[in-house]
Amino acid sequence: MSSAVNYHDYLQLDKILNAQLLESDKQAMPAHDEMLFIVIHQAYELWFKQLHHEANSIVSIMGKPALNDNSPELQTVVHRLNRMVTILRVLVHQIDIMETMTPMDFLDFRDMLRPASGFQSWQFKELEAKLGLKFEHRHGKEYYTAQLRKEHVDVIKKAEGDKSLLDLLNGWLERMPFFQEKENWNGFIACSENQEGLHPFWSEYRRQYQNSLADAEKNNLQAFDEVFLSSANNERTISATASKSALFIMLYRGYPMLQLPFQLLNALLEIDEQLSSWRYRHMNMVHRMIGMRIGTGGSSGKDYLKAAADKHYIFKEIAQLNSFLIERRKLPVLPVQVEKRLGFVAS
Amino acid sequence: MSSAVNYHDYLQLDKILNAQLLESDKQAMPAHDEMLFIVIHQAYELWFKQLHHEANSIVSIMGKPALNDNSPELQTVVHRLNRMVTILRVLVHQIDIMETMTPMDFLDFRDMLRPASGFQSWQFKELEAKLGLKFEHRHGKEYYTAQLRKEHVDVIKKAEGDKSLLDLLNGWLERMPFFQEKENWNGFIACSENQEGLHPFWSEYRRQYQNSLADAEKNNLQAFDEVFLSSANNERTISATASKSALFIMLYRGYPMLQLPFQLLNALLEIDEQLSSWRYRHMNMVHRMIGMRIGTGGSSGKDYLKAAADKHYIFKEIAQLNSFLIERRKLPVLPVQVEKRLGFVAS
Amino acid sequence: MSSAVNYHDYLQLDKILNAQLLESDKQAMPAHDEMLFIVIHQAYELWFKQLHHEANSIVSIMGKPALNDNSPELQTVVHRLNRMVTILRVLVHQIDIMETMTPMDFLDFRDMLRPASGFQSWQFKELEAKLGLKFEHRHGKEYYTAQLRKEHVDVIKKAEGDKSLLDLLNGWLERMPFFQEKENWNGFIACSENQEGLHPFWSEYRRQYQNSLADAEKNNLQAFDEVFLSSANNERTISATASKSALFIMLYRGYPMLQLPFQLLNALLEIDEQLSSWRYRHMNMVHRMIGMRIGTGGSSGKDYLKAAADKHYIFKEIAQLNSFLIERRKLPVLPVQVEKRLGFVAS
Amino acid sequence: MSSAVNYHDYLQLDKILNAQLLESDKQAMPAHDEMLFIVIHQAYELWFKQLHHEANSIVSIMGKPALNDNSPELQTVVHRLNRMVTILRVLVHQIDIMETMTPMDFLDFRDMLRPASGFQSWQFKELEAKLGLKFEHRHGKEYYTAQLRKEHVDVIKKAEGDKSLLDLLNGWLERMPFFQEKENWNGFIACSENQEGLHPFWSEYRRQYQNSLADAEKNNLQAFDEVFLSSANNERTISATASKSALFIMLYRGYPMLQLPFQLLNALLEIDEQLSSWRYRHMNMVHRMIGMRIGTGGSSGKDYLKAAADKHYIFKEIAQLNSFLIERRKLPVLPVQVEKRLGFVAS
Repeated sequence: MSSAVNYHDYLQLDKILNAQLLESDKQAMPAHDEMLFIVIHQAYELWFKQLHHEANSIVSIMGKPALNDNSPELQTVVHRLNRMVTILRVLVHQIDIMETMTPMDFLDFRDMLRPASGFQSWQFKELEAKLGLKFEHRHGKEYYTAQLRKEHVDVIKKAEGDKSLLDLLNGWLERMPFFQEKENWNGFIACSENQEGLHPFWSEYRRQYQNSLADAEKNNLQAFDEVFLSSANNERTISATASKSALFIMLYRGYPMLQLPFQLLNALLEIDEQLSSWRYRHMNMVHRMIGMRIGTGGSSGKDYLKAAADKHYIFKEIAQLNSFLIERRKLPVLPVQVEKRLGFVAS
Repeated sequence: MSSAVNYHDYLQLDKILNAQLLESDKQAMPAHDEMLFIVIHQAYELWFKQLHHEANSIVSIMGKPALNDNSPELQTVVHRLNRMVTILRVLVHQIDIMETMTPMDFLDFRDMLRPASGFQSWQFKELEAKLGLKFEHRHGKEYYTAQLRKEHVDVIKKAEGDKSLLDLLNGWLERMPFFQEKENWNGFIACSENQEGLHPFWSEYRRQYQNSLADAEKNNLQAFDEVFLSSANNERTISATASKSALFIMLYRGYPMLQLPFQLLNALLEIDEQLSSWRYRHMNMVHRMIGMRIGTGGSSGKDYLKAAADKHYIFKEIAQLNSFLIERRKLPVLPVQVEKRLGFVAS
Repeated sequence: MSSAVNYHDYLQLDKILNAQLLESDKQAMPAHDEMLFIVIHQAYELWFKQLHHEANSIVSIMGKPALNDNSPELQTVVHRLNRMVTILRVLVHQIDIMETMTPMDFLDFRDMLRPASGFQSWQFKELEAKLGLKFEHRHGKEYYTAQLRKEHVDVIKKAEGDKSLLDLLNGWLERMPFFQEKENWNGFIACSENQEGLHPFWSEYRRQYQNSLADAEKNNLQAFDEVFLSSANNERTISATASKSALFIMLYRGYPMLQLPFQLLNALLEIDEQLSSWRYRHMNMVHRMIGMRIGTGGSSGKDYLKAAADKHYIFKEIAQLNSFLIERRKLPVLPVQVEKRLGFVAS
Repeated sequence: MSSAVNYHDYLQLDKILNAQLLESDKQAMPAHDEMLFIVIHQAYELWFKQLHHEANSIVSIMGKPALNDNSPELQTVVHRLNRMVTILRVLVHQIDIMETMTPMDFLDFRDMLRPASGFQSWQFKELEAKLGLKFEHRHGKEYYTAQLRKEHVDVIKKAEGDKSLLDLLNGWLERMPFFQEKENWNGFIACSENQEGLHPFWSEYRRQYQNSLADAEKNNLQAFDEVFLSSANNERTISATASKSALFIMLYRGYPMLQLPFQLLNALLEIDEQLSSWRYRHMNMVHRMIGMRIGTGGSSGKDYLKAAADKHYIFKEIAQLNSFLIERRKLPVLPVQVEKRLGFVAS
């Protein structure tokens, strides 16, 4: 560095600390809490930028034709997903601050903001798209296109067009090599006859799963077949092949080579859970703030948010796999060759 | 105290620390995480006992024929409600611990627990009833009577039969004296003609509210009339009279005599919000744990919890009042006599 | 508002989201985590601005010659202090995010930042000064003058020169009227003889306090006299008169007129506690990050932070008063006239 | 399971919910908050039991003559350490609940508890000992032997006599094989001459570290030698050999075989940090509660806690290693043979 770095300049605090212009000041109808309203939304947008920074780096690694298992790539992905979770936890907590603004205090300046609205956070929508929320699964599909400027709609559209983290996850799972390599499975011991057309491991596993079902759960077998055996072009983003890989990771996570993949799947579920908590608390907060009034952006407020919270789970196909686990003591024993592939070089 | 108190004996740790008997040990199929499962539920039940201790004292104060405004009674109520909120926050956070148990780890002992289930926490159901959840508003009404022992069903039934905090709140709000006393309102200045049969203050307020509504919100006036003017025997627990008092408190919370009442209303909404967060995170956790499997108690797991989370808001009639606020600068000015009643003795 | 407000423009996101320029990019030695480093510090500074916004409004109210007990002034002060506490809690939590940066990741760009340093957050130092931290009580007094630009040193110096919240608190407590008005205390019943020169209430209270002391605590009586009876010009900012008022508030907080003052004292202690938690966690984080290396600003890192954390309690003279409480059942009974002054107009 | 399990019986709620006997009730001087005091301490003790359950299983795995890298052992250790961190976070948060008890409310029953005291939590002291706190490093060494019953002192003494997690960590680190195997290091390329008696890797690393030191940090080289090169019998529990292994893990954590070891070291530091936060907040809470009064157990309260908080860092020798990192881009390149040992079987 040629010249000395100064904290104030480095952080560009002249920009950051001079970006709060209150409508209530402009209109000479002072409303103390408008500053809070601006600052908290700016803080959210700063963190959204950081979430994009992490997501971009993750997408870039996951987008490689193949990950190098002997490099830190997967570790880096997991570490950064976990950081995203940590950030999202703080963003959920941050709603506590917004809740210190009472409805009467909000009314002091609320009408001055129309038609601005939190729905116009294009960074948040872009993030959802980048993670894997498709336009057609969005609640109130056409809504954001009407609310946002063209340049910001374009940003979201682009993210929707690119491969999302969910797509890349599917590809990565599909590339898992253990089942394709037939010779690995010589000597696999099954307790039940092999079902035609099925890999011996999965034929055996399906039988074990079937046996584990309580009477009231018998329909689950059909769901099992739809998720893992169907080649039909269903609604799912995670293919049957990828789903089997993901389930295998969950079942045999104890082997070294599956430890980070298991952490990766868990981190994705955590992200969904935190996003969901955020949407839920945000919805409750809006409800408490405006009741059944119309949001500043013209939406019906709570109802929109509730529907979105219910629909916008991104990794739900992964979460769903937990329905298909069986007890550890009933797990098929893996052949030695597979075990070897899953472990470290013997010393 | 005649004899020395000892920490270990005082806390009865011999009881507390010897109350964990693992089914998986009994059955000689060790499952490490069953200890966690037991301990966390015991911790929850301990805190439920504490929540009852606070709720009982609050109900006992609110159940008096009249609170003495010059005593610490209301302050005590608010303080203990806020403590309940603080406890509930920790209980929500505590779900993080449960989430460290993976679905596979739960499967190690899950079947051994049937048909025990978290639905059998009679203390939690009793608490909901004590706060004001009525049997007829409960999701899956008959469910708990089938699941619980008669002695525990009786405990809940008794709480449902007694006056709940919600009932007592209604009574306390109805007793608010300012409007009954006609002489207080001499000299009240209204900008609009008085609507027949309506107190001049509320006639004026209704007009202001009407003016504040956006086109898309015009139906809100009808809701206003139903909440505040109807004497009809509707579904509401909070009567029209009590609703007016509550709204008055929210609007004029700045006057000394309304400050604690305002804190009280807020604390009730906070309790609902934390209960709701708890149910929501609990639901997500169960979903992640068992997917679409059947709960140990035989319920459909997530669906039950979701419906309950949506329906079990206890103080929603108070929350709803936020729909009927108007801007501070448009608030009717109170007559001097009323202002005097709301303040301290002039020094 | 003449024209439509847009979310993006209203929040000035062009400024906010384009204020991250990485040194590691400039130097073409990419360091992924530098973005986090910048964003988290910007988020802190945004919140510091908000804390100033709240503190300014509080100082402005407390700086009035007299608060109007029948206005919302004190309620506003308490509400905004509590908001500051809520913000500070989030800021403490936010350290979790910083801790996702490992020491090795920090090393990737650490040297590029010299001599910038978190010590150069003039907003934080200004906040400490505004609340009541005096220059002479600061650890490493001369340190900040050497590190900061003159314009920012001037900002802090100005805050140190103005009346701080601690000063204004002292003035407000000193103005509490109950003891000056002699006629109020006719009929006060004491169990002990009046100590000459002492107000009968405090003479009685001192006796009760003395009786409550265990043998090992007998020296506390001397401390009592220094705090409450001394007119000497000691080190304290809170005078003997003000200390007596504060203690009286703590003891008789149940009376309506003392309820908000009690909440105010509590909120101040909470602010200190959160500031202290922040400094403590920050210290641990720095320690974990750089061990016994020298901070980028040239300080000895952890040692500086530790000394500051120990010394920078701002409201410690209030916290200390808890040493002088006695059991509720031994409290002197207040005369009827005083009780009346502390309550609402009889209805 | 032969018979149906019932929630109430399974959790032994008859024991748990009937273990609260208030001294203030016995003495007929009702103190509402004593219930809180009992319940929160019981909740803490329940969680301490759980922490022991986790710690025992970890100690039992780490105590094996050698961990099997191809088994889930290390993963299990890391998972359970992280669970301990999650529990400790809740325990820190739980202090919020205790803080809802005001000093005046505590005074209502405080004297009835003497000489019971939180210092008598033998489970907490046993936990500290099990993790690695030695008797001679304890603040107020003789204190607990005087305060506790012989049977509980014996429990702690036993934990102090057994191999602690810190001891086992040292053994595990010392067994790390890479440096002993000379043939691994053929072809290692150093930029500096080899220092006699030193492994070529560490000779090179020491030189790089030396070059990285700022002028004011030159003494760090001496510290480096003491930590990593000294065979002298110094105060350290983590030997020079083990310290080198730990630093190697931190530096090359990206290689598959070092990923879980790195997570393990991090989890241990997290445990220390949470324990430290707990002690710190507990200290502040006691200070706020009793000021400079004497604790119920006869201690000087805050001072004791402060000294303990400063001294009782258990894994500080690991934390300290962060002082000896160098930039990633200056890291010595590992020979191919070593890289191979650190990765998965090539596919």
